[in-house]
Amino acid sequence: MPATLPRSTPIALSDAQLSAYTAFAHALADAAGAAIRPHFRARLAVDDKGGTRGYDPVTIADRAAEDAMCRLITATHPDHGVFGEEHGARAGSTGLTWVLDPIDGTRAFITGMPLWGTLIALYDGSRPVLGVMDQPYTGERFVGSRFGAELVTREGRTALAVRPCAGLGEAVLYSTHPDLFVPGAERAAFDALCKQVRMTRYSGDCYAYCMLAAGHLDLIVESGLQPYDVAALIPIIEAAGGHITDWHGGPCHDGGRVLAAGDARVHAQALAALAQVP
Amino acid sequence: MPATLPRSTPIALSDAQLSAYTAFAHALADAAGAAIRPHFRARLAVDDKGGTRGYDPVTIADRAAEDAMCRLITATHPDHGVFGEEHGARAGSTGLTWVLDPIDGTRAFITGMPLWGTLIALYDGSRPVLGVMDQPYTGERFVGSRFGAELVTREGRTALAVRPCAGLGEAVLYSTHPDLFVPGAERAAFDALCKQVRMTRYSGDCYAYCMLAAGHLDLIVESGLQPYDVAALIPIIEAAGGHITDWHGGPCHDGGRVLAAGDARVHAQALAALAQVP
Repeated sequence: MPATLPRSTPIALSDAQLSAYTAFAHALADAAGAAIRPHFRARLAVDDKGGTRGYDPVTIADRAAEDAMCRLITATHPDHGVFGEEHGARAGSTGLTWVLDPIDGTRAFITGMPLWGTLIALYDGSRPVLGVMDQPYTGERFVGSRFGAELVTREGRTALAVRPCAGLGEAVLYSTHPDLFVPGAERAAFDALCKQVRMTRYSGDCYAYCMLAAGHLDLIVESGLQPYDVAALIPIIEAAGGHITDWHGGPCHDGGRVLAAGDARVHAQALAALAQVP
Repeated sequence: MPATLPRSTPIALSDAQLSAYTAFAHALADAAGAAIRPHFRARLAVDDKGGTRGYDPVTIADRAAEDAMCRLITATHPDHGVFGEEHGARAGSTGLTWVLDPIDGTRAFITGMPLWGTLIALYDGSRPVLGVMDQPYTGERFVGSRFGAELVTREGRTALAVRPCAGLGEAVLYSTHPDLFVPGAERAAFDALCKQVRMTRYSGDCYAYCMLAAGHLDLIVESGLQPYDVAALIPIIEAAGGHITDWHGGPCHDGGRVLAAGDARVHAQALAALAQVP
């Protein structure tokens, strides 16, 4: 699989097109959720020596969900490209690409924690313009585009907005795991940042980015991401008023090192601390 | 507040009594959930310098939920004792004490993560005999007693059972945060244990104990707990077939250092590693 999203001249989408693609992204999330739900908290077949055999819920759910989404895309938009975790990349003829991660947060999934999500982004050749994070167990769907950012649940829709935060000393930081960072300069920069913030919490995966968009935390720092781990989260955070870049302030839709903040002041201070990492 | 639960001759409960107290524990959880839900994901009043002022959702929700539960206990069982996080201890005349933590997992709560829970235990003078962990946002309630362990949701009831795990090398370990452990022997023992297990994840709070009872993870190691942080989780884990003790294999309902495992082999191996800590 290519490590980065295919670059091309950005496709300008009309409001009507973006509306239609947003509705289609909801259909993709519905299909993925239906494929995944039966396998969440299903028991891995474990023998009495603690080894595993046969049924592996996360692998089966991951593939089934990506298959379901790919079938829908092929049937409805055969000229669109697909860039998925499981199936790799299929180039389209339009410059539009669906970037898919059926289960982001595999370790949350296999331990029963409802913090994983299905990530769906529409990429226009230069950046993701539409993002969905769907959590089918809790019934939460986070959506972002130039139309805005919102949380959709059974109860209704709530606009998402980041919260103000004056600086690192006030900030709540999330990161999936301290061992995400390469020992050496990268880990040292992260550890130094942890010492400057008000509180650090681990785990969260894609769910943490959505809580940043919803104004419940201030800063996320990660490393080693793939394009499909982050592409869908960019439109959600940006439409909620937040900032998400790589550790040098550039675009991060190709993954790698990611820095997200709700407040521009926190983003700038974290960038100053992280940009020194070679 | 006393650091430990009041010790007395254990009160023998008939099946009818335990049934009635189980129904009452559900009523307590309902009351707590109703008090907390409006404050979950409510926005802390934050000024534009990042400081906070006025409305603090978790403090208000914590107190309102404990007030609601205490009122119910006083009205229904005035002769029962109460041992709560917020209000301290009130001795009863029967030897029965309700051990309450309205919001276990404060840091999850304030960052919007649905992994906190309301913990309710009935303590008989020697050990907790009934435990409830309620997560009102996801609509999950975990209940344990000698009648069994189950997850109650809108969809119905599911029996909880730990999974087999042959040893540390196969085990998935959860702990709330690496900084929970006192630097020195305690932290070193935890770090050494992390190197022996298959995977370590942070966060989870009370939710992780329930996922252990449900067979989705194998081992939890924590330190610095209060009685109300752990008392309700003991009957849930034990009724699901698991093992939960302090780091020397003794009872852990007074909090402190806690070790929980689904499989006795994993518990024994972890105990061997941790019991050396003075």
